[in-house]
Amino acid sequence: MKRYSNGAMWDSNEDGIPVIDGGDGVVLGVDGGTTSTICVCLAASAVFPDGGLLADPSPVLARAVAGCSNHNSVGEVAARETLEQVMSEALHKSGRSHSAVKAVCLAVSGVNHPTDQQRVVDWLRNVFPSHVKLFVENDAVAALASGTMGKLHGCVLIAGTGSISYGSTEDGREARAAGAGPILGDWGSGYGIAAQALTAVMRAHDGRGPETRLTQDILCELGLGSPEELIGWTYADPSWARIAALVPVVVSSAEAGDPVADKILQNAVVELAASVRAVVQRLGLCGRDGKGSFPLVLVGGILEANRRWDIGREVLNHVTKDFPGAHPIRPKVEPAVGAALLAWNSVRGD
Amino acid sequence: MKRYSNGAMWDSNEDGIPVIDGGDGVVLGVDGGTTSTICVCLAASAVFPDGGLLADPSPVLARAVAGCSNHNSVGEVAARETLEQVMSEALHKSGRSHSAVKAVCLAVSGVNHPTDQQRVVDWLRNVFPSHVKLFVENDAVAALASGTMGKLHGCVLIAGTGSISYGSTEDGREARAAGAGPILGDWGSGYGIAAQALTAVMRAHDGRGPETRLTQDILCELGLGSPEELIGWTYADPSWARIAALVPVVVSSAEAGDPVADKILQNAVVELAASVRAVVQRLGLCGRDGKGSFPLVLVGGILEANRRWDIGREVLNHVTKDFPGAHPIRPKVEPAVGAALLAWNSVRGD
Repeated sequence: MKRYSNGAMWDSNEDGIPVIDGGDGVVLGVDGGTTSTICVCLAASAVFPDGGLLADPSPVLARAVAGCSNHNSVGEVAARETLEQVMSEALHKSGRSHSAVKAVCLAVSGVNHPTDQQRVVDWLRNVFPSHVKLFVENDAVAALASGTMGKLHGCVLIAGTGSISYGSTEDGREARAAGAGPILGDWGSGYGIAAQALTAVMRAHDGRGPETRLTQDILCELGLGSPEELIGWTYADPSWARIAALVPVVVSSAEAGDPVADKILQNAVVELAASVRAVVQRLGLCGRDGKGSFPLVLVGGILEANRRWDIGREVLNHVTKDFPGAHPIRPKVEPAVGAALLAWNSVRGD
Repeated sequence: MKRYSNGAMWDSNEDGIPVIDGGDGVVLGVDGGTTSTICVCLAASAVFPDGGLLADPSPVLARAVAGCSNHNSVGEVAARETLEQVMSEALHKSGRSHSAVKAVCLAVSGVNHPTDQQRVVDWLRNVFPSHVKLFVENDAVAALASGTMGKLHGCVLIAGTGSISYGSTEDGREARAAGAGPILGDWGSGYGIAAQALTAVMRAHDGRGPETRLTQDILCELGLGSPEELIGWTYADPSWARIAALVPVVVSSAEAGDPVADKILQNAVVELAASVRAVVQRLGLCGRDGKGSFPLVLVGGILEANRRWDIGREVLNHVTKDFPGAHPIRPKVEPAVGAALLAWNSVRGD
């Protein structure tokens, strides 16, 4: 029995769930985002329908959820505590001990550079024994894997509060575009769309821009009396997710015919498509003639096809004009499962 | 003798500077910004050359400097403590007691709404006796007054870390444009210029945008090895002033012929000119024929005419195309003196 820095004892299980050790190995997949961190535990011996989706009932043994694990947002100490905790909880729930772990794939936002990656690997190496296979990736990698059943080939576009495009080739080359946060211009993201809508309200109010229905729709949504009050509202809590939560209002305004809202969504589509295009071109995913087939995985609330003004569909229209071989995939499993599949792939041959 | 909430006793002076009371009244002007807060103390009986600049030696009796007093940034308690402290220090340095104060003009950023204004007036009323005249304004008002010797007529454009345009007519009408912070789209500001330059570097790096000299110039300035490292750099401390400090690099890149940097500055000029235009049109400062004369006060580091690529001159070129009667003024005194002149104007008739 070993005690880790978070105080958990992974070989004990206070709830009386039988702890299975030894041959019945598991893999862990972690999707660590700015809003939450999710860990799933898969049986290392799980059998998946070849190339298809996960079997139903899914071989996910357990799932645990914790808070933010982006070290840029909460600092390294807090990020690591969260990661240890969520992995410990998933193992606990699955009735497996720490020594049953065969491989771990940590896909965390904020890992943008090989030095970030190495730092997290070094830390993980202190948590797991040397025979455990460890993978640390940007969270976009897990999102790609969630659409391709763990095969790292193709391009993924994630658009939620933030946005990023990431791609990988079968021979291991990688590329990404956007995903650098709002200061560095992720204007197709949920934050970007909502911030431009707020800007449009201020411009209409002070005479720099055209009148827009966004004014009434956003003030009504926020329960504010005038555009000036938006200044205090944005200062009160500048969290990106709080701003991005206004996207459905922008979509409604556009659906009601507001040209300002419509233009903001059109611009977001162009930005998102440009980030896909940059990745596909750099990796040559479309082949020499530009018509080659490749998976295009679409992930995140902004791309969900649940509205008349369908951002995901419009992005796809833009992308397929350039790359007719783009094969759209909307994953049926969450990115944490994608991360677990990457870990699982690494041990399946053993 | 009265003890105030910050513990200072304004009627005492521990440094032995003689404390003059009674007839020898003073006025206080405060310029409270996000970076610093400045208080100046003028003799209420000072005589200024009619309509001209302050006499040299200036009748400023004392000047004190403190930190941020924007309640949106530091909270109300800290903002008020800073304001009490800086006023106390200016009086102390001038050898005047608290009871010598005839009028106070507090011009603070973050006062964007009549309710903000009233809250600060109510608080000031607890600090000063009822015969003291109190004025609370957005800091743009003091900047206008610093160019017009305390006369509230004309338009001021401030472009530093942030940007705002404010105007006032002789019959008391007011208007403002921009000044709502980066989330709400002040793209002509120093922050806006620098954030767009950082965005251009990321776009060039990941293939979404053209190559730009900004990459080498900004990475060299920050001592970073690659554009990916900018992500960690912006997260490490997202203060607007730290980002805005990159503006001289953008100007240098543009002067060296970089078209991307040039376009960013051109866009900033358009944004800044648009905010002036919005204010001038709403107030009708240019008269019915659009050719009427009005003061246009230019304030802030972004507008200083010290470079070949001169943002202030370009803004002026844009504005005077629409409004040939705009009479540019670059103030010789700081905004805190403008605030003090507003207070001084209110007591000169007494």
